[in-house]
Amino acid sequence: MAIRVAVNGYGTIGKRVADAVALQKDMKLVGVTANSYSWLTEVAQKKGYDIYSIGDQEAFKQNGIKIAGTIQDLMGKVDVIVDGAPKKIGKENLEKFYKPNRIKATFQGGEKHATAGTSFVAQCNYNEAVGKDYVRVVSCNTTGLVRTLNEINRLYGIDSVHATMIRRGADPADIYHGPINGIVPVLEMPSHHGPDVQTVLKGVEIFTTALSVSTTLMHVHSIIADLKRKPDIQEVIQRFKDAARIRVVRNAEVIRSTAQIMELAKDLGFARGDMPEICVWEEAIGIDPNGHNKLFYMQAVHQESDVVPENVDAIRAMMGEKDAQKSIRMTNEAMGIK
Amino acid sequence: MAIRVAVNGYGTIGKRVADAVALQKDMKLVGVTANSYSWLTEVAQKKGYDIYSIGDQEAFKQNGIKIAGTIQDLMGKVDVIVDGAPKKIGKENLEKFYKPNRIKATFQGGEKHATAGTSFVAQCNYNEAVGKDYVRVVSCNTTGLVRTLNEINRLYGIDSVHATMIRRGADPADIYHGPINGIVPVLEMPSHHGPDVQTVLKGVEIFTTALSVSTTLMHVHSIIADLKRKPDIQEVIQRFKDAARIRVVRNAEVIRSTAQIMELAKDLGFARGDMPEICVWEEAIGIDPNGHNKLFYMQAVHQESDVVPENVDAIRAMMGEKDAQKSIRMTNEAMGIK
Repeated sequence: MAIRVAVNGYGTIGKRVADAVALQKDMKLVGVTANSYSWLTEVAQKKGYDIYSIGDQEAFKQNGIKIAGTIQDLMGKVDVIVDGAPKKIGKENLEKFYKPNRIKATFQGGEKHATAGTSFVAQCNYNEAVGKDYVRVVSCNTTGLVRTLNEINRLYGIDSVHATMIRRGADPADIYHGPINGIVPVLEMPSHHGPDVQTVLKGVEIFTTALSVSTTLMHVHSIIADLKRKPDIQEVIQRFKDAARIRVVRNAEVIRSTAQIMELAKDLGFARGDMPEICVWEEAIGIDPNGHNKLFYMQAVHQESDVVPENVDAIRAMMGEKDAQKSIRMTNEAMGIK
Repeated sequence: MAIRVAVNGYGTIGKRVADAVALQKDMKLVGVTANSYSWLTEVAQKKGYDIYSIGDQEAFKQNGIKIAGTIQDLMGKVDVIVDGAPKKIGKENLEKFYKPNRIKATFQGGEKHATAGTSFVAQCNYNEAVGKDYVRVVSCNTTGLVRTLNEINRLYGIDSVHATMIRRGADPADIYHGPINGIVPVLEMPSHHGPDVQTVLKGVEIFTTALSVSTTLMHVHSIIADLKRKPDIQEVIQRFKDAARIRVVRNAEVIRSTAQIMELAKDLGFARGDMPEICVWEEAIGIDPNGHNKLFYMQAVHQESDVVPENVDAIRAMMGEKDAQKSIRMTNEAMGIK
């Protein structure tokens, strides 16, 4: 029987996970929730998704949106909820809806690790999520760091990592936040990303700093990894090429910026022009000229989509699928991901 | 027999027209040209498009791109070329390739009207292109102006139009042009768009000004039309709703900017997240409070895609299809356009 899934919090991540779930052969998208009227509800209705209301239904009725029931009605119909609610609301939803109704749930990176007890990146620690009731898919940045560092760790062993994250200021459709013009350092040391990586990639020493810039097109990470063995550039390139959900892009093919990666994603036909794969620039992979066991690389992370396949895998793991590679392959095939 | 089409100049417009042609039941995409290696040639090959080289083939070979022949070889295999070359190169291509080989061609708005002799917006003057050898699809801005003004002209009769175009500074993948921060007026009066509109929407008096701003997401037009009759807002809204390739968007559904229109386009599933329809804000359609026969409205124009269906219709018209509505319907259905 198909796994019955609903999305509570139909925003940037939620709408994407809803579409991804609808594409999986072993899952059924039962519905999505909405707490205010917008083009998102218009599009959800157009796609044939059942819409469950949170709070007042008046604006939906006025605009011709058919409501299938309330969020409470939805709880009786599903095995797993994907919680895409804003930061901290996920924890409230857990106490109010999921625990009392004994429903499994995935949470997003805005929630604390303790809320779910298990933090998750499929390629790294899928097994930890098998059979669990609550799993937290880590943030886009943490997911990006874990995906590539996990490969490097398995290949050479990591002593420590220093990473600087140059973050997009806001998402493309967000007209309320900045900066329009400026560079905004995150004024805490380390930034929260380092400790967050350690909830998934256990025992790796990592120190991160972050700053925001005037772009909506992806984050970029500049990573320095001190390794237990001397790295080889060609070996690293091949390892990234072989890994799922990592893409090696090249200056030689005129991919010189996040803007061109986003254009490539559109050209490749990814839904919404998303790039769910972490993109590493081949020409920006380097080793220490003085012979230390250091590896340098730069990667781009699409903040809106890299965690989408992770949510799908987390659902399968929670529902008992034990084979990580099988789940990753199924998710990737349905979504057109490498 | 299917119309044999090729695209010469596989860039922002060309790649989109190639995909649109490949979707038409009555057309066959024979191939595309490439004059330098990039991700675009990688993607064209992945899509199974035959690639014909312009000039040196070495970089293609080095990167594993299979070349089907030279641009000269292509000329013997097609009925119509879509010329997507940069400004003024289209005219050179006409003299060098299309005329000597007696091949029909569409040109883009960067070429002069005289190059083709016929300028084109399907909803306005399809008939003028029937059976022609060369047709110029006007620029994205001119197409946007003509689509909506043509409806207003048929409804009320236009005395004159004043329009200000707030233009995107560069396309999303273009990292070489600005402004990053500034407002750049076009220092000619009128801007070339007014005279350009008159090559299609004949006999309408129009004066345009333009300026560029720091965005990659669509142009916006602020339009004032002096009319022969008093307009009615609801009638205008209904007219735009009924017209093909025009979409009425609403502040009420939280579509408050070009950023949110682009997000809507992604959510609707348009290829590449394009918005080939001209979007008019319902709440920004107004009439003169002093009772003059004036209509005000604001519209957003997606610079990369609104001319794509126009190229497809131009091909059909040139090949002899006389029924404008039939062609527009076929194009729209294949592309998922309203």
